[in-house]
Amino acid sequence: MAEHMRIMLPGPTPCPDEVLRALSRPMINHRGPEFVKIVNACTEGVKWLYQTKNDLLTLTTSGTGAMESAVVNVLSPGDKVLALVSGEFGKRFAAIARAYGADVDALEVPYGEPVTPEIVASKLDEGTRYAAVLLTHNETSTALLNPIAAIARVIRERLPDTLILVDAVSGMGTAPLPADELDLDVVVAGAQKAFMLPPGLAFASVSPRAWEAYQHAKMPRFYFDYGKARDFLAKGQTPWTPAISLFFGLEVAVRLLREEGLDGIFKRHERLMRMVRAGARGLGLKLVVSEERYASRAVTGIYAPEGMDPAVLRKTLQARFGYVVAGGQGPLTSTIFRVGHLGYYDEADMLGLIAALEATLVSLGEDVTPGAGVAAAQAELMPTKAMAW
Amino acid sequence: MAEHMRIMLPGPTPCPDEVLRALSRPMINHRGPEFVKIVNACTEGVKWLYQTKNDLLTLTTSGTGAMESAVVNVLSPGDKVLALVSGEFGKRFAAIARAYGADVDALEVPYGEPVTPEIVASKLDEGTRYAAVLLTHNETSTALLNPIAAIARVIRERLPDTLILVDAVSGMGTAPLPADELDLDVVVAGAQKAFMLPPGLAFASVSPRAWEAYQHAKMPRFYFDYGKARDFLAKGQTPWTPAISLFFGLEVAVRLLREEGLDGIFKRHERLMRMVRAGARGLGLKLVVSEERYASRAVTGIYAPEGMDPAVLRKTLQARFGYVVAGGQGPLTSTIFRVGHLGYYDEADMLGLIAALEATLVSLGEDVTPGAGVAAAQAELMPTKAMAW
Repeated sequence: MAEHMRIMLPGPTPCPDEVLRALSRPMINHRGPEFVKIVNACTEGVKWLYQTKNDLLTLTTSGTGAMESAVVNVLSPGDKVLALVSGEFGKRFAAIARAYGADVDALEVPYGEPVTPEIVASKLDEGTRYAAVLLTHNETSTALLNPIAAIARVIRERLPDTLILVDAVSGMGTAPLPADELDLDVVVAGAQKAFMLPPGLAFASVSPRAWEAYQHAKMPRFYFDYGKARDFLAKGQTPWTPAISLFFGLEVAVRLLREEGLDGIFKRHERLMRMVRAGARGLGLKLVVSEERYASRAVTGIYAPEGMDPAVLRKTLQARFGYVVAGGQGPLTSTIFRVGHLGYYDEADMLGLIAALEATLVSLGEDVTPGAGVAAAQAELMPTKAMAW
Repeated sequence: MAEHMRIMLPGPTPCPDEVLRALSRPMINHRGPEFVKIVNACTEGVKWLYQTKNDLLTLTTSGTGAMESAVVNVLSPGDKVLALVSGEFGKRFAAIARAYGADVDALEVPYGEPVTPEIVASKLDEGTRYAAVLLTHNETSTALLNPIAAIARVIRERLPDTLILVDAVSGMGTAPLPADELDLDVVVAGAQKAFMLPPGLAFASVSPRAWEAYQHAKMPRFYFDYGKARDFLAKGQTPWTPAISLFFGLEVAVRLLREEGLDGIFKRHERLMRMVRAGARGLGLKLVVSEERYASRAVTGIYAPEGMDPAVLRKTLQARFGYVVAGGQGPLTSTIFRVGHLGYYDEADMLGLIAALEATLVSLGEDVTPGAGVAAAQAELMPTKAMAW
């Protein structure tokens, strides 16, 4: 039998059939009225998920390109920037700013721990006037959700004019991130995540404060220029030929997301996260992020059992059951694996993954009580727990 | 009846059903062995069309992003650069280099005329030692094919170490552009053109001379960094999450292209160009590029009849027959329209377009002999003409 591959990665994630089928539509003119309707519907849908009235630009790029766009459109070489780093993606954001000549202070926390408002307050109270602070919403490498709301508050209290640039590439749509309410200046997100779309499109919301900064920002830019994107968006277009097929898919995806509703989307991601965490603990496995409030709603990082190479675990899980989970990154590469649960996933997917993980551990000689993981995951579905939501 | 839209644009172009259906495949892990096979097959296929043994990088971006990548990976701010400008895309290449701080001399020729080797020789004989020369292979805005081979020779004779950067975004695959034989350093191309794929992927070939320049190039870059792309390509991967669906389609598209063969692909594009030119002349219309040797194999620029707004012509053609052709750009906006014939097109497509154009002109009150355009286009299919190829 052909392998039935079941990806459970922190992106790309599976896509609804309706979205995938939309990708096969014949090409249309990206300068014609048909495409204008699609661009406008997509833009409105993404703004809804962002909970923003700011301009929302859609770029044909990977998430990393969107992160670069956030930096180069609002900063100048030499600008003092504070990068809050809780993992590989926080490091990447800082590296991008450095590549374009920003003077970056990196505030790093140990892998698996969040950036807390207290640490940020203490850093800002040293008195440096930063042009921008770089934040990671969901730090995919350590499967961590940073307390963005509290951090943003701490920044705003101390530096009312400082730009807050947020990498929400993997986090947008998995946990509330109301860009306007939190007064965030640029928030970037990737379509291959909670948006349930294949990779290739990314988004950036741009606040009035960010547009003001754009006027004076001197970092070089062309392809990622927000001003050009805004001018063309006013006509329902993009400055450069966009990934038209992905726009076809995005139009469908945002409709599906709106049908589910913001509350439904966020609660689903939270519930799936709880199921995976409970299931892993039921199997005697240790979680990278111990406190649930900091646990990513997009991906869960789990330590392999003592003495077991996580690469062997992942390989066995895929060979026997078709589940594809991610490895660790950076210093966690040799100790953890990561289960993605963002995007087009439901409870049955999590039960299936935990059951297969359980069977895999048993087959590798681990002392696991068959059924223990699934039982623990199921407990998260019990009425009392559900009612608590 | 629902409108049957027939796009005849210089990109996006129609795609074979088999390519479109491949876009709907479920997501796979872009870090897994299945995707490695796809990346490697695509890379080999694109190198074949490029006729190059140089490194070939595939970027998730529009063509403009690929043009930017060519500049920022091999140049430093302040570098003297010669931009050969024959239209809007030549201007864009120069603008990108300027945005990143290059000291750009622009050598502009009138719209509709080619950059000739004589003009370039005369410019270079002034003695400036340029770090790079920027060339446009197919200038889409004026529907012009520049004589790249002769220009490259003139540059190499005078400046053996100067980088030759070629925008072949729309031209690659429509006319021979053997990157190695012509000793071109960076050649960028877009997938939504002769590759018969929807937009979202672009390519860059990188010569040893360009890699040498990369070592010292100081323009900032991150997302478009060639070194990172090369390192990941060695593993059959891309540094950032790529547009996976488009890779699925590209794997199919390069197989179809190889089945047709280089000679078949180039002859088909040349024949379609001749049909459209003959058809337009048969209808009494004037061509933007008068000499066939400089006529784009990708798109034909045609003046609207005296006193007729080309926008009205285009609108009527689409409303009545579903054909979508492009307008002019820059100073040609109010006078011309452009018919794309690159990618997945054949002779029947051109006959249909000419016939519909003919009927449209008649309906708009033009004095056109019904059948004259199609007869002229058909003449290009006669055995003696065909045999001459």
